[in-house]
Amino acid sequence: MTHEDALGLLAKMLENLERWMDKAEEDAKARSFDVDVLAQARLAPDQFNFCGQVQGACDQAKYAAAYLGDKQAPSHPDTERTFPELRSRIAKCREFVGTVSAADLSGSEQRRVSPPWLGGQWLTGDDYLAHVALPNFFFHVTTAYAILRHNGVALGKMDYVGSLPAHAA
Amino acid sequence: MTHEDALGLLAKMLENLERWMDKAEEDAKARSFDVDVLAQARLAPDQFNFCGQVQGACDQAKYAAAYLGDKQAPSHPDTERTFPELRSRIAKCREFVGTVSAADLSGSEQRRVSPPWLGGQWLTGDDYLAHVALPNFFFHVTTAYAILRHNGVALGKMDYVGSLPAHAA
Repeated sequence: MTHEDALGLLAKMLENLERWMDKAEEDAKARSFDVDVLAQARLAPDQFNFCGQVQGACDQAKYAAAYLGDKQAPSHPDTERTFPELRSRIAKCREFVGTVSAADLSGSEQRRVSPPWLGGQWLTGDDYLAHVALPNFFFHVTTAYAILRHNGVALGKMDYVGSLPAHAA
Repeated sequence: MTHEDALGLLAKMLENLERWMDKAEEDAKARSFDVDVLAQARLAPDQFNFCGQVQGACDQAKYAAAYLGDKQAPSHPDTERTFPELRSRIAKCREFVGTVSAADLSGSEQRRVSPPWLGGQWLTGDDYLAHVALPNFFFHVTTAYAILRHNGVALGKMDYVGSLPAHAA
């Protein structure tokens, strides 16, 4: 999987997340509650709420694009509290990911990636993608999905997976 | 990310899942309940329980290895109901994934993958990995993790991520 394809996958999953939020809004309207109750919902008292999961997914995509594309990641403070604010955060993230070109990603497999939390240690770009970006990104989008499902939003596996680049028989 | 590295990532996450199960067993002992209550736990009434999530994760890893390595996937019926049975399922899955060699994966990026549920359509091996295997695999392991967290098992992000192939500064 090329890193360009990997960033495309993250962008697609963020689009899917927006569709899950559409369904959450429809559900909140149908059941007559404020959808931002779901923005504060969480699965365990010491785990991030839905806002935190969306922010985490965005940050994983943003940092993957920045580290692999050798660009400065824009600052996106975690101030969102509502669905419209979360949608804006996702849009800003997707916009930044879209600025990273195939040329920016040239040689990214072997690029040294040294996020501050590694305390000076480093990973190859390819290992950062496989062992940090992808697991953590999918952790956050799946937990966001699980929070909605746990609260009764009618989502299914095809909402999760989204479109597939399938070829005709 | 090479397909060999991708299968290694799936195997590592299955090992991590076994560590989460260790912690669930310790927690059940400390709180004096039968750990297999957690095997039946779920986040929504119409979503798979913990057993189903572990079976799903194993199947995604198994089919990724089989399709990309051009091998016949062994049959693993979803009969598990207990933690020991789930551990056996994970072990069988990891063993099969381990049989797929780098040579088996030669050319797998462009190999046509046509699972029955695609109704005759096909994906390239690389697209199958990116758009089917990875999202669905991480869906199931993250949901398994979320079921344990929701029920009070003390897991944290480092349990989720596991070991990192980091290099010294």
